Amino acid sequence: MSPRPLYQTLANQITEMVSQNVLRAGMRAPSVRTFATQNEVSMTTVLQAYRLLEDKGVLKARPKSGFYVTSRTPDTRKLPAESRPPQQATPVVIGNGVTEILTHAANPAYAPLGCAIPSVGLLAADKLDRHLARCARTLGRSYNVYTEPLGDADLRQAISERALRIGHTVPPDNIIITNGCTEALSVALCATTRPGDTVVIESPTYFGLLQILEARGLRVLELPTDPTHGIDVTALEKALKKSRVAACLFSSSFNNPLGCSMSDTAKIEILRLLRQHQVPLIEDDIYGDIYFGDDRPQPFSSLDRDADVILCSSFSKTIAPGYRIGWIASNTRRDALQIAKFSTSLCGPALTQKAMADFLGSGGYDNHLRRIRRTFFDNIGRMRFTVDRSFPVETRITSPNGGFVLWIEMPDSFDCSKLFQRAMQERICFAPGHLFTAASRYRNCLRLSCGHEWDYRVERSVERLGELAYELMADTKY
Amino acid sequence: MSPRPLYQTLANQITEMVSQNVLRAGMRAPSVRTFATQNEVSMTTVLQAYRLLEDKGVLKARPKSGFYVTSRTPDTRKLPAESRPPQQATPVVIGNGVTEILTHAANPAYAPLGCAIPSVGLLAADKLDRHLARCARTLGRSYNVYTEPLGDADLRQAISERALRIGHTVPPDNIIITNGCTEALSVALCATTRPGDTVVIESPTYFGLLQILEARGLRVLELPTDPTHGIDVTALEKALKKSRVAACLFSSSFNNPLGCSMSDTAKIEILRLLRQHQVPLIEDDIYGDIYFGDDRPQPFSSLDRDADVILCSSFSKTIAPGYRIGWIASNTRRDALQIAKFSTSLCGPALTQKAMADFLGSGGYDNHLRRIRRTFFDNIGRMRFTVDRSFPVETRITSPNGGFVLWIEMPDSFDCSKLFQRAMQERICFAPGHLFTAASRYRNCLRLSCGHEWDYRVERSVERLGELAYELMADTKY
Repeated sequence: MSPRPLYQTLANQITEMVSQNVLRAGMRAPSVRTFATQNEVSMTTVLQAYRLLEDKGVLKARPKSGFYVTSRTPDTRKLPAESRPPQQATPVVIGNGVTEILTHAANPAYAPLGCAIPSVGLLAADKLDRHLARCARTLGRSYNVYTEPLGDADLRQAISERALRIGHTVPPDNIIITNGCTEALSVALCATTRPGDTVVIESPTYFGLLQILEARGLRVLELPTDPTHGIDVTALEKALKKSRVAACLFSSSFNNPLGCSMSDTAKIEILRLLRQHQVPLIEDDIYGDIYFGDDRPQPFSSLDRDADVILCSSFSKTIAPGYRIGWIASNTRRDALQIAKFSTSLCGPALTQKAMADFLGSGGYDNHLRRIRRTFFDNIGRMRFTVDRSFPVETRITSPNGGFVLWIEMPDSFDCSKLFQRAMQERICFAPGHLFTAASRYRNCLRLSCGHEWDYRVERSVERLGELAYELMADTKY
Repeated sequence: MSPRPLYQTLANQITEMVSQNVLRAGMRAPSVRTFATQNEVSMTTVLQAYRLLEDKGVLKARPKSGFYVTSRTPDTRKLPAESRPPQQATPVVIGNGVTEILTHAANPAYAPLGCAIPSVGLLAADKLDRHLARCARTLGRSYNVYTEPLGDADLRQAISERALRIGHTVPPDNIIITNGCTEALSVALCATTRPGDTVVIESPTYFGLLQILEARGLRVLELPTDPTHGIDVTALEKALKKSRVAACLFSSSFNNPLGCSMSDTAKIEILRLLRQHQVPLIEDDIYGDIYFGDDRPQPFSSLDRDADVILCSSFSKTIAPGYRIGWIASNTRRDALQIAKFSTSLCGPALTQKAMADFLGSGGYDNHLRRIRRTFFDNIGRMRFTVDRSFPVETRITSPNGGFVLWIEMPDSFDCSKLFQRAMQERICFAPGHLFTAASRYRNCLRLSCGHEWDYRVERSVERLGELAYELMADTKY
């Protein structure tokens, strides 16, 4: 019997690490160079081993990044089905359901699966803070003023330059700095709608957005949304034909909570429809920089320069939730947006804006983004893997290509608000699904945030959620 | 002939300094000690001289502060008459009239009489900036989070303690930190009104407030307002009886632009009426700390603990326009306000709030307030004096006891928007009167800000405005 080839021995070593949970779903395998050195073999042999594991579906190569452990059960878990919200506009009545989640988000006593906020340790924004310290020390006098109405000129310039890199041409004077993306969305709706108007949105969608829509007295029409392909464009076309729509508000990519991204083709078709019906699009690009593929998805704005689009985004998901710096970019509605911004908060703080401009100018942000993209990708993989092995077999899980949240669909009769009550007693916070719609749907769904460092507590909390889900299903004799 | 008494000689010396403009209206006379040393006389003799000048109306004593030069023509200038806005609710249509003013506010090429913003040099907020630098250096990691929903706990505690000192009992958990007073007012209106509702306001009132009311689709009923006594309480009573009012929104003191303050008696009567009609009061206390008398005026909130009042304020007029930190305090509407704040901007920046809390805790703020109160008092005096000697004889000028703006009323046929056009050509910015109402009034009025260091450029700009006013009146053959 000929001896086992060396590369097969190496491959088995990796497989063993995976089966023993030393390497977990979503984690990066040792680099080819490192593994070769450790085993005193050539890099070619390691590559041979990794290719074999790729063929077996254990690893997956990511260009310029390395080899990653795939979910071990790629085919047993179905994705959630396309949503089927009612196809008529409804008023939004959310009330204070979101308050509990947000209150516990700031409380370190609760396991942080509830809010889609990256943890401070993971963000490591020390460099930005040093810029702020320097600005406060040296520029305080000249910056203790109301900023220009649009916001700090250097910051708008930096944002304009970054937009250009992904093909989005927007001059600095068409950019308005806001107090986070929430204010950006609120101002965009103020500039495009009147109370009682109908806004078309994805379903499920971010609960904070529903709160804004409620506060502005707007009605919403929720579109069927697929966890891979995004909104149903045919349903949008029908809606536009049937009723007067004041605005559409869609994610540019990585919808919260589904993580879905629409193709450029679908986006272009949507822009065509909206132009035909003269309806403005508000796009929420807040997760755009957290992509796991090779290229950043294009926002709608970059696909058609002349389209009537208002892009909203912020630095809260990528570097600085504590700074509350967002922005609006629009080549078609600048003046109306400016007036709406005045009446919301006049302008934003000066020194934090200047510090952010200096930080962006210093060139550290791209490295930072590369680092956190890898971390979020790892976290998503680990979270999927842990849900997979901990939750009842009927559970469906999304498989997002960006962002840092997972959407989990339990059987129809499951009630996640009961799970929420039990979980809160054990100091585990998550976001129950019914918060993500104005239409009494998704009671059987939940959203988990993967924005925290992956550690024993997070993993154990997810496992515990799975146990509680089993218990609940047994209780209700499902 | 007996020789002239020494104190008379000293009094003449001061009178001469006044007549030669060495000492000007609003300026502080040399301290008794200094003047005694300079003239090698006893302090008693100087006091005798100053008392004589007081009797003659040249000086006015301010307890614990010294003697100040009065306006030399205290009786020739009438105050503007009580306003007479139409007594029916109207929609607010301001559009972008305010944008020009705000844009030029940030432009140092224009003489800064337009916006009611204290200048950076005058505020001298270095100490606050040092706190921010320290916070950014040492606390960045732990503060790179969304703050508690209500805002930084230390800052709310500090604001609560300061409120208690003027008899306003509001626990820290009934305080919400906002992005400046503009957001505070916007959130307060969001929590108390629905689009189409009627809000009762002063007339004239702050144009920023009108922008907020317009953005929220509200109608306003403007009340007759006297430049000394504030709103006409009888007119308020009539309005409450006649129509459904969703909220009242009044200044706590030093209405912008009139500078008027209501007596405690009037405030208590207003609270009684509002309670009777179950109408909430939003009070704007932003100028409350800039009082020229001995005591800070009481906000409505402190006069009746159980009243349905929402107090809005900020640090923008007293220390830090660049920080954009305001707050809302209400013992009756906390939950609704919190939801409205979420939907406006979620929360505010963390480090600037912490820095402000540390600054307030360090004890420097009260000294700072004493200093700027004196400066604003001086500036108001000088501005009144300069308007008095530069503007046409029919001009009426307010005489505020706090804040830092003057309201100037020209003859009825005068058009201040023409004056504005000519002034802008000469790079002098002021706020034309028609911006301060939703009811096409006050075209013959203007507001001048005294928030800048008094210097030759400011003085010359006011003189030049007077010259332009004369020219315009000649042109139109008034």
